[in-house]
Order: sequence, then C-alpha cells, then structure tokens
Amino acid sequence: MKKLGMIYEGKAKKVFKTDDENLFIVDYKDDATAFNGLKKGQISGKGAVNNVMANIIFQMLEKKGIPTHFVEQLSERETLVTAVKILPLEVIIRNVTAGSFSKRYGVEEGRVLARPILEFSYKNDELGDPLINDDHILALELATEEELEEVKRYSYIINDNLKEFFLEIGLKLVDFKVEFGKQMDGKIILADEISPDTCRLWDAVTNEKMDKDRFRRDLGNVEETYQEVLSRVQKKG
Amino acid sequence: MKKLGMIYEGKAKKVFKTDDENLFIVDYKDDATAFNGLKKGQISGKGAVNNVMANIIFQMLEKKGIPTHFVEQLSERETLVTAVKILPLEVIIRNVTAGSFSKRYGVEEGRVLARPILEFSYKNDELGDPLINDDHILALELATEEELEEVKRYSYIINDNLKEFFLEIGLKLVDFKVEFGKQMDGKIILADEISPDTCRLWDAVTNEKMDKDRFRRDLGNVEETYQEVLSRVQKKG
Repeated sequence: MKKLGMIYEGKAKKVFKTDDENLFIVDYKDDATAFNGLKKGQISGKGAVNNVMANIIFQMLEKKGIPTHFVEQLSERETLVTAVKILPLEVIIRNVTAGSFSKRYGVEEGRVLARPILEFSYKNDELGDPLINDDHILALELATEEELEEVKRYSYIINDNLKEFFLEIGLKLVDFKVEFGKQMDGKIILADEISPDTCRLWDAVTNEKMDKDRFRRDLGNVEETYQEVLSRVQKKG
Repeated sequence: MKKLGMIYEGKAKKVFKTDDENLFIVDYKDDATAFNGLKKGQISGKGAVNNVMANIIFQMLEKKGIPTHFVEQLSERETLVTAVKILPLEVIIRNVTAGSFSKRYGVEEGRVLARPILEFSYKNDELGDPLINDDHILALELATEEELEEVKRYSYIINDNLKEFFLEIGLKLVDFKVEFGKQMDGKIILADEISPDTCRLWDAVTNEKMDKDRFRRDLGNVEETYQEVLSRVQKKG
C-alpha cells in the first residue's frame, strides 16, 4: 500500500490518498484544540493513544454489527481505512449532562438522563459547528432522510455498546461525538475516531475526568490520563 | 370582568388576572426590543396594531380548527384570553431562509425552502433563547412527548392557513414564531400573538420587508408599515 498525497488535514489527523482509490491512510497527530480552535496545544503521545484505542473500539463495534472505516493498523499512528466522504455532521449522544449542553441550557453537570439525548452539529469551523435539527439538515441537504435515519439508528447502537464496554473498564460514558462517512457505493459507515478526544469518560468510582476536559479545563495529568485510558482499553480489547 | 393584579410583564405585553381564574387580560405595549433585548425602542401604535391583528388572525385560525386563547377584545390594546401556563418554547416555522437561520448556517436570505422548517427555541432570556431539539425538550421536561407532537401538528396547520391568508393580502410569509399554552385542564392551545412582531412578511410583489425587521435593521417607515399590514388584514378579516 503506497501512501500518496495528503487530501485533508484536520485538527487532530491528516488523511492521505493511497494507490487504491477505495482506501485512505489516517495519520494521528498530537495536536490538541478546544473551544472551536481558540485553545491550542499538544498532548504528547495522544496521536498514538487515539489511533490504537479507536482501532480496538472500531473492531469491537464491527462485531456488534456497526460498519466502520477500519481496515488495518499500519503503525503506532497510522491506520488504513475505507475511503469515504465525511457527512458534515457531528452526532453527539449524551447520557449524563455536561459540556455545551449544560452551558447552553443552564443545567448543572452530572445529571443522569432518563434516556440518551441525540443532537447534531453542523461540521463547519467558520460557523462554530452550530447545533442543527433534522429539518435544517434536510433543508441544507447535508444528508438525505434515509441517511439521517441510518446515522441515528447506528448512533444509539454505538452508545449502548460503548456504555457497556467502558463500564467494564471502570469508566462512565458521559457523552461522545461520532462522524459518519459515505462510501463510493453510497453506504454509510462509522468513520473518524472514538477516543478521549471525542468521549467524556468519568472514572466510575471517583468521577474523575478521564478525557480531553483535562486539557480544556487545565486539570493536569493530561498525558498520563490518555495513557491510563488506553491501558484499560487494551486490557479489555 | 374585573382587571386585577399584573401577573407577568413581557417585552411587548402585560398580563393581568381577572376575577375569573380561567381568564386573563392581555395588554399590548408599544415597546419594541430586538437581539434578545439589546436594542430597545418604541413603535408608536404598535400595541393596538398587534392586538387587533392577532385577534382577527386567531379568530380565523379557530375556524380552521386551531384552539386559541382568544375570548374577546376589550379595547384597542386589551383582550380577554383563556388563562394558560405558557410552554417555555418558541416554535418557529420557516418557509423562506432569513434571520437567525441564515446567520447560523451561513445561507443567503430569500431562498424558498422545498418544505417548511420547524425549529424550537427554549424561551429563556438569560440563556438567549437557544435553539433546542426534541430530545433536549423531553430531557429538560419542558413538554411531554404528546404535547410536543400536538404543538408540531398545530404549527404546520397554522403555517398552511397563515401562508394562504397573507398571500391573499399581498404578503409572503417568510417565517413566524408562535407560543402555546396549557389550560388548567391540560389542553394545549395557541397563545401569545401573531403580528408583524412575530412574523416575517415580505410584500409579494416588491419583496419589501413589512415587519419588525424594519425596526431591527433601521429601515425606516416602521409605524407606517405596521399600520399598512393591519389595514390589509382588516380588509380581509
């Protein structure tokens, strides 16, 4: 597999073409950003943690019936994935109130929700990734009605499986963000990553934050926490 | 009917108790605000225009099967209405892109939508009336699932009837906001007002703005426009 030109550089990853038009190579960076890019930094070792962790979780989800972009891990930071066009939507599922939900609606953090909340953001840095509803998504033609239903169905299944997976390694899944992509044949599959960058994970016993909030909120022990989460995931995975 | 103590003062209206616990009196003000209260002013005669116009439209909607709070107009600015507890939700329906939708999602104004967009805002001045989705509404217990479905069903019917009503008097209904209330027996009815304060109305021929955007955007002829809209509504109503 030949790594060819870079086709996209995001805040945490680079994506490269390969000599097979159906495959991309994802290269994870240590760069960390928060608050729509206003806060910038580095978390040493993060790229490797997120790559390895996402790959373990994607393989677990494949076994549960969720199609993902994962093909093969190439190195500590590089993974071969199915080539997709990312839908310009972030899907957020919340099990416990926190973060932007708490801020936007004036609700304290840590309230366990009777049932999960699903929300969409429009992936658009210039606009600040605004909250968006189903009617808006269809009007802006960001996805078709069928794609939207599939994305929601997959997201709830992912939540059920992730909640269980993390609880078994002593972590509460507070909320998380996923992105989906469309294959050349139109099929929707899970893409991007699942990592401490994209999940809020609280220690099941101490409620200690074990995710990117340590970076966002300057809580210290950022690198150690990422390594600790990976180590728990690897023991289970 | 005796007008007793004021129970609520909003930006554009005061609400008073009466000696019948099932009835309130609404008193319309000339005060105008925009941008979540950041811009303040007066539109001379607005209170009377909005009162009379809302009453004509509410009676039209009653005939179309929409239950409303309207009981009887008491004076130029005062109306007797059914006592309700207002649901803390603004229901916005959009037929043409404009205003906060265009700003939030980076879309030019004036694009006719293939089908109406329905969106909710959480009525909360401190939080800036943020956009909210169905899952959020249920999690925050702002309405039950049944109430939410009823509110949506009514809103689409209101849109169909308002579009037709306004077109017959040479006005395009770009978007509008409505609020619903809960009667003591739990029944959901249309409350608040329908007026140039709460609708975007563009002249069907010239596309001239015939609504509160003249105040928001300092377009001049504010009072004259409110009077012109009322006069067209009265001719038809």
